[in-house]
Amino acid sequence: MANGWSQVLEGNPRAIARALSVVEQGGAEAERLLGRIEQGVLQEVHVIGLTGAPGAGKSSLSDALVGLFRRDGERVAVIAVDPSSPFSGGAVLGDRVRMMRHTLDDGVFIRSMGSRGSLGGLARPVRDAIKVLAAGGFHKIVLETVGVGQSELDVMYVADTVVVVLTPAGGDQVQAAKAGVMETADLLIVNKADLPGAERMKGELEDMVKIKQSAKRTWDLGTFSEWSEPVLLTSAPTGDGVEGVAQALSRHRAFLAEANRLDLRRGRGRLQELRERLEERVVSEVRRLWVEDTRFDELKQGVVDNSVTVSRALMRAYTLMTHEH
Amino acid sequence: MANGWSQVLEGNPRAIARALSVVEQGGAEAERLLGRIEQGVLQEVHVIGLTGAPGAGKSSLSDALVGLFRRDGERVAVIAVDPSSPFSGGAVLGDRVRMMRHTLDDGVFIRSMGSRGSLGGLARPVRDAIKVLAAGGFHKIVLETVGVGQSELDVMYVADTVVVVLTPAGGDQVQAAKAGVMETADLLIVNKADLPGAERMKGELEDMVKIKQSAKRTWDLGTFSEWSEPVLLTSAPTGDGVEGVAQALSRHRAFLAEANRLDLRRGRGRLQELRERLEERVVSEVRRLWVEDTRFDELKQGVVDNSVTVSRALMRAYTLMTHEH
Repeated sequence: MANGWSQVLEGNPRAIARALSVVEQGGAEAERLLGRIEQGVLQEVHVIGLTGAPGAGKSSLSDALVGLFRRDGERVAVIAVDPSSPFSGGAVLGDRVRMMRHTLDDGVFIRSMGSRGSLGGLARPVRDAIKVLAAGGFHKIVLETVGVGQSELDVMYVADTVVVVLTPAGGDQVQAAKAGVMETADLLIVNKADLPGAERMKGELEDMVKIKQSAKRTWDLGTFSEWSEPVLLTSAPTGDGVEGVAQALSRHRAFLAEANRLDLRRGRGRLQELRERLEERVVSEVRRLWVEDTRFDELKQGVVDNSVTVSRALMRAYTLMTHEH
Repeated sequence: MANGWSQVLEGNPRAIARALSVVEQGGAEAERLLGRIEQGVLQEVHVIGLTGAPGAGKSSLSDALVGLFRRDGERVAVIAVDPSSPFSGGAVLGDRVRMMRHTLDDGVFIRSMGSRGSLGGLARPVRDAIKVLAAGGFHKIVLETVGVGQSELDVMYVADTVVVVLTPAGGDQVQAAKAGVMETADLLIVNKADLPGAERMKGELEDMVKIKQSAKRTWDLGTFSEWSEPVLLTSAPTGDGVEGVAQALSRHRAFLAEANRLDLRRGRGRLQELRERLEERVVSEVRRLWVEDTRFDELKQGVVDNSVTVSRALMRAYTLMTHEH
């Protein structure tokens, strides 16, 4: 990486890919590399989070958006996040197909990130990857997640604009929406709008947005509550409605640019990151002590031969853990 | 739940479902309920873990196995674990289809478990669910996971026999195998054996097993190394090879029953559980302090308004966290 940094700044895809691998790995080399990135690098960047249940059509939608951004001359990076996958760096199957389409286009960069069995959330590596991509001149960054679990919600704190993709098929999505995804949404999409029930679902979601709006107004004092989440119908394969999504995205970005909102939102994201990294750090210390501290040996033996219950051992281990370390 | 326990012991599905919800929830009521379960309840139980990449055919295979176990008069429970799903208790789509098939059969019990955004792994709730199912008279328990991430590996520590399901299609599975899943496997299945490359893959996996065997022998001194992981070809839809899987499963169970191996294996599982629960406990304490302890206020503000970097704040917060609490 010694002299690769200037190539990153030039937008060289291979240099960017290498830099991403370094920051994903973490550690001292990552810190050094991140130290070279200018403070204001994220100022022009728009991080767009795309989430929703598997099969909702996130990939097609992100693909269609990439096409629109390219038409406008924007350089676009897509980070496909799959917390359940141990694979990283390479591309998952769907990406490979997409990559083939964009393979000769230096204005599009696609990257998969898995958990690699790492501790804690993906938020830290994703944040760092965004900084590298921003340094490489990618100002539209699409953060795509698989599924709607907790890890996906955590990753969404990194996005400036969160797009939740739903489909009219199955009530699971509405349930998902109720289970916390709605909270984070800035833009709601009913994809596969040609399926029956799309209009009705749009109506239901709009009702939910209204309820959320009035709740927001009571504690937000206008900072974010002036944004009422649009509900849009799309059909990603035909491209119907995607233009409207792109417009709503730039409206939201413009909204954030006013009244210090972007700084505040990213500040909250950093706070989230701090808490996550603190947890990671504490857990890794617990794991170290668990292996190295001989005071646990007797307890471990007791649990293995079933002379101590796990619950009792837990109390004892917690006491040992929180004293003199 | 006051008088539902006798119904659990009678194998009443509704009572079992209620009891499962209680133990999943955790807390005092769960502890009380678990306290009623006899010590030796797991003695006759065989917990079979099924893991592998999405699309490998785990569900069809588990379905075929359920059919065989039922033919032999065994009562079977299936726990479908999806750590990326916030849904729990209910049934995911695939299960619903299966449930319909078994809906009038009290000898089959199917349950989905998601993460519900809970802290830490699923190992604790899964373990507790197994105890309840054992008390309800289900002695074959199939633990089916979606995907091959870290959470799935953690869940596999709960199983007595770990079955890794692969397919000849795509090198991803071999990569998955290399990424840690192989370590946990007691039985390897090449499903969709009608696809080209199945025999070659079987050969490759057998080579990997040989390497693993010689490695095991050097540290295991015969406890588990006398088991050489069989590699079997199956075609779940036609049922080809599934009988062989059932036989290999009972051979492995018999192997564990000898020389104290089952106790040792489950003991190691309990040790794993203890470490996980210790981590959960520590993290929940970190989260509590993060919210309640006013010493963090200044630091939080600094991170939000970007006057302190996250890395610097992390060092300071860790110091605060590990002092006087």
